[in-house]
Amino acid sequence: MPEQVTVIGGSGALGSGLALRLAAAGVAVVIGSRDEGRAGEAAGRVRAKVDGADVRGAANGPAAEASEVVFLCVPFRNQSETLTNLKGHLREGQLVVDATVPLAAAVSGRASRMLGVWQGSAAQQAAEMVPDGVRVVAALHTVNAPALGDLAATLDEDVLVCGDRRADKARAALLIELVPGLRCVDGGRLEMARIAESLTAMLIGVNARYKTHAGVRLTGLGDRPW
Amino acid sequence: MPEQVTVIGGSGALGSGLALRLAAAGVAVVIGSRDEGRAGEAAGRVRAKVDGADVRGAANGPAAEASEVVFLCVPFRNQSETLTNLKGHLREGQLVVDATVPLAAAVSGRASRMLGVWQGSAAQQAAEMVPDGVRVVAALHTVNAPALGDLAATLDEDVLVCGDRRADKARAALLIELVPGLRCVDGGRLEMARIAESLTAMLIGVNARYKTHAGVRLTGLGDRPW
Repeated sequence: MPEQVTVIGGSGALGSGLALRLAAAGVAVVIGSRDEGRAGEAAGRVRAKVDGADVRGAANGPAAEASEVVFLCVPFRNQSETLTNLKGHLREGQLVVDATVPLAAAVSGRASRMLGVWQGSAAQQAAEMVPDGVRVVAALHTVNAPALGDLAATLDEDVLVCGDRRADKARAALLIELVPGLRCVDGGRLEMARIAESLTAMLIGVNARYKTHAGVRLTGLGDRPW
Repeated sequence: MPEQVTVIGGSGALGSGLALRLAAAGVAVVIGSRDEGRAGEAAGRVRAKVDGADVRGAANGPAAEASEVVFLCVPFRNQSETLTNLKGHLREGQLVVDATVPLAAAVSGRASRMLGVWQGSAAQQAAEMVPDGVRVVAALHTVNAPALGDLAATLDEDVLVCGDRRADKARAALLIELVPGLRCVDGGRLEMARIAESLTAMLIGVNARYKTHAGVRLTGLGDRPW
């Protein structure tokens, strides 16, 4: 520390919220977007809210090259295309933290329904698509984007982190836990991401019924679940 | 109230725990088991722990006939057979609360993996198999059976209740919330049960890693989520 991370899809709802919260925690952030101009505008919005924020925008490719940890916060309908376009930019040793949720909304279905992904989950699709040696963990699915993007909103929830290497999960967790109110829990291997992803669909329904921003918390884990 | 409920699979881990907790809350319980003798023994164990408990055992068929609300707490490998055998015993107007989780352990796979159920979830399979007019809601999947079965254990978690009729979910929730520490949350339509069911597989993995009995809690719902 101070570490720098990249947020691909950083001009979107979840990505911009994550960039804002990490910047507020003192992390340097490179916001990636398909359009460099939009990335720059998103970076400007973060700097306007966080005094002294070290945030800049870039096109997805250069943004992905810039940091060792790359958060992928794009809608499912763009995940595959984004990863295809990043093949020449990601390199061995980088860690991709995939937050993609394959909601049926991607094909004009209900946001409370999921698409079946052949690999089992969006995260496993990501793992299949990244260049050799790039590791993937899955996280952040259930975090409400508007709440994340509002520094005045109090977060109080867990983030289920799934991945095949404990060290990769811990690295992602250390960054995510810089956001006040987010606690990371080891959700198991990357294949378990399908469960964390689908929980998002249920929370979207809960949010609609209860007019709230629900989060998930696992009880019974004691003080230091990570 | 005082209401009577039936717990099919009431001699198993989850079922016997539920019977114990409901009996301790003053609910009359009929424990159903394939073997009438085992049902009677399970009832005796509850009576030994709860002074004045109104609990009796019966074979599954008569047990299912005895109450308007029937909890189905059998392993997935027995769910279909059990429901086939109950076809002549369940009747229109009854409410079945299905707690079945299609863990891969049913076919000697990992308990942290799920089987794909053609209908989408074990609960939807149950809804397909019950006689016309019998309603099905899904609940209780994520509640740890040993913790439920230990009156000294403090529960502190939510129960995701899924079903197609709000009134049915509310009826199940009122009963379940008689158990101290369990709060019911409307998880959406019955089709959402696949998510609540799969969350159980993740909790099983979490329990193994953290050596605990984890539960799930949704944050942000305020004081009265039901």
